[in-house]
Amino acid sequence: MDPRVSLVTLVVADLEAARRFYVAGLGWEPLVDVPGEVLMFRTGERLVLSLWDERAAVEEIGPVVRGGTPPMTLAHNLGSRRAVDRVLDDAARAGAEVRSATARDWGGYSGYFTDPNGFLWEVAHAPGELSELLVPPGDEPA
Amino acid sequence: MDPRVSLVTLVVADLEAARRFYVAGLGWEPLVDVPGEVLMFRTGERLVLSLWDERAAVEEIGPVVRGGTPPMTLAHNLGSRRAVDRVLDDAARAGAEVRSATARDWGGYSGYFTDPNGFLWEVAHAPGELSELLVPPGDEPA
Repeated sequence: MDPRVSLVTLVVADLEAARRFYVAGLGWEPLVDVPGEVLMFRTGERLVLSLWDERAAVEEIGPVVRGGTPPMTLAHNLGSRRAVDRVLDDAARAGAEVRSATARDWGGYSGYFTDPNGFLWEVAHAPGELSELLVPPGDEPA
Repeated sequence: MDPRVSLVTLVVADLEAARRFYVAGLGWEPLVDVPGEVLMFRTGERLVLSLWDERAAVEEIGPVVRGGTPPMTLAHNLGSRRAVDRVLDDAARAGAEVRSATARDWGGYSGYFTDPNGFLWEVAHAPGELSELLVPPGDEPA
């Protein structure tokens, strides 16, 4: 098995709230949109983020843990601290609860926001090799 | 905010078990390996999968829900049904609990395995557009 992640699927209790946040709030264009079932976005080269309605999901995968903060985060990496602050402002305007960015022990700068279904996104600038690996060449530099 | 996922971070209660499974079992080469803290793999173009020790994680993000199946899955997409069966066999040999692949309502073929920290991976062949979007050209065709 090669190291390959093709889709990240978040099992959501409220798919309509997810649509309001990601589509209406952030302006993301869906790749697939089946109301009441699934909403998908292209979030990278050969990478899709899928929001799967919990009722549909449990039929296929069985019960999942609910409530609290899920034991995972998604990170959105950027080329500068300024861009981090700007994206956190975007998320706040779209209705997310935001924890402001701060300098981190590992040398970067990041903050978090929580999406309407409780999933945590880290918005980060990681200088050095990780940034070269993760941030597209077109991004505003530091 | 552009639709971009740079890292997927799984908060794990047992980082050593994760290392045994992903590194020793599946043969993945770490991008970053800090025992007791974090283990990272490159899992796509501008995409990293990070396994973050729970003790380190809760200091930064606060408590997370434990036990049961987390409300998310990772998918590993492949170019053929044969390849799906083969990868599920790989995962079983590496020690994962496997649910054999089956034809799905959405037209594809997929099975699941559970990693040592309870995270579900779907191993899938999705014919058509989704496959063209997700599966690298070098993959064995259907």
